[in-house]
Amino acid sequence: MSVSIGDVRRAAERIAGYVRRTPVVEVSPGLFFKLEGLQHSGSFKARGGFNRALSGGKIPEAGLIAASGGNHGLAVAYVARSLGVQAEIFVPTVSSPVKVAGLRALGARVTQVGAVYADAYEASVKRAAETGALDVHAYDQAEVVAGQGTVGLEILEQTGGVDTVLVAVGGGGLVAGITVALDGQARVVAVEPELIPTLHRALEAGRPVGVEVAGVGADALGASRAGEIACEITGTAGIRSLLVSEEAIVEARREMWREHRIAAEHAGATVYAALLSGAYTPAEGERVAVVVCGANTDPATLV
Amino acid sequence: MSVSIGDVRRAAERIAGYVRRTPVVEVSPGLFFKLEGLQHSGSFKARGGFNRALSGGKIPEAGLIAASGGNHGLAVAYVARSLGVQAEIFVPTVSSPVKVAGLRALGARVTQVGAVYADAYEASVKRAAETGALDVHAYDQAEVVAGQGTVGLEILEQTGGVDTVLVAVGGGGLVAGITVALDGQARVVAVEPELIPTLHRALEAGRPVGVEVAGVGADALGASRAGEIACEITGTAGIRSLLVSEEAIVEARREMWREHRIAAEHAGATVYAALLSGAYTPAEGERVAVVVCGANTDPATLV
Repeated sequence: MSVSIGDVRRAAERIAGYVRRTPVVEVSPGLFFKLEGLQHSGSFKARGGFNRALSGGKIPEAGLIAASGGNHGLAVAYVARSLGVQAEIFVPTVSSPVKVAGLRALGARVTQVGAVYADAYEASVKRAAETGALDVHAYDQAEVVAGQGTVGLEILEQTGGVDTVLVAVGGGGLVAGITVALDGQARVVAVEPELIPTLHRALEAGRPVGVEVAGVGADALGASRAGEIACEITGTAGIRSLLVSEEAIVEARREMWREHRIAAEHAGATVYAALLSGAYTPAEGERVAVVVCGANTDPATLV
Repeated sequence: MSVSIGDVRRAAERIAGYVRRTPVVEVSPGLFFKLEGLQHSGSFKARGGFNRALSGGKIPEAGLIAASGGNHGLAVAYVARSLGVQAEIFVPTVSSPVKVAGLRALGARVTQVGAVYADAYEASVKRAAETGALDVHAYDQAEVVAGQGTVGLEILEQTGGVDTVLVAVGGGGLVAGITVALDGQARVVAVEPELIPTLHRALEAGRPVGVEVAGVGADALGASRAGEIACEITGTAGIRSLLVSEEAIVEARREMWREHRIAAEHAGATVYAALLSGAYTPAEGERVAVVVCGANTDPATLV
């Protein structure tokens, strides 16, 4: 496969001084939440960003470049600031002023271009070719996938072992990395919003398929197709993708605050929605880890 | 002393199946946050509540009784529901309808009486004498202090050892329990809002002294005097109490959300305020644990 367990282990060593080992809490017997919203920049994305940035020797003079108005952009901006290099982030013109301001607050140069993400991405690729900046893809790069996989290594260590890890999917970098990291020691189940079934469709088709992007998860799970790497890894591993409704996601997010005082973005609550709605029902005694992948959210909307 | 390290260890065994082992996150090298807001009922108070309820053999027919419109009341109501017994909670008439509704949602019988906490407390003592219910004090009972001390045992285990534990103080149950639990393996520093210096005054006077209660911390640190047990234990141990301003608490709470995505109530942010404001400056290489004691807060006010 394009990413090996060795790649994930090396990523863990490489990024150890830069990312937080986020905590795991056993909220009820056998149910573990991995709190990746407490990661630097508020989501797991910093892991892949650091691994990409630190994998290739010296970072070019032009620094890092990425396309994303969401968690990935924040992460790349954070990574660049930490490493003392420049970041250039391309976002679509529709991106909210709050997000653009957040990126700039991290010291990134922000370019708004194009109506949708794909346009901003294309512009970033062109710009990278001009400047020589190191492109950090949001999900479809081996170093990025290996970096996200470190979440899986930590889950195994921190829980003492689980049967199942439930992971939300956007472009599939996290689910692919965790699948490799678990190396058969636990099964992975993917969870996606019904309105953004990128992996679901890809697994049916055997290749990435473009889907419409809509709904509450769109800000963080808004990739319009799964990555090639994610398709290969999850397809080979025989991963299932479950779909959850908008209502289930919204309710799960509120329940996470109400019952557990955990602040999650909608993407971060998508997995828990599968449990609460019955889309996934653990067997008697099954040990389940839920990856709460991000907390970049307006806390006023938690209640 | 009135509470021994053995009492805390026995408390840990007694409550192990009932409370969460809340996570610790190392937010920067050597700085640990103990996330006790993720505890059942949203604060550390469930620990002392369970230990008191489970220490005396069979719980009386009349169940548990307590006086508190805040975290302690929520905890006792939660404990009673978990153990399948009744809870009667006395709160002052000024308590917010939201808090009363929260207590009732946990199945507690709520009695509103008196203008201030002391009145509600007196009424609860009288009522306990009539019904035979087991009284659970908010801080000044050996079983309660021993239960809160389990936070300290976990900090030592989860961090692999620290030099200093910073703890906020209301009535002093948590700081006293942690002081006993650490057993000299780390120093304890107490932190209080300038507007509610219960321990500060008690340590000056050598005994509990009544103070006015005001400010943002009042909902959770609102005891008007430190407990006898807390005075004895912290006085004997030579604990220092630092004072922090209202502004520092408000800013620390926002910073905890902004930089770490940790939701804390003002009481839970009081300790971090000591670090941010410079009231406490760790030495080079000093390992510091911050107890984030609660998260019962309106998340809309985090930003």
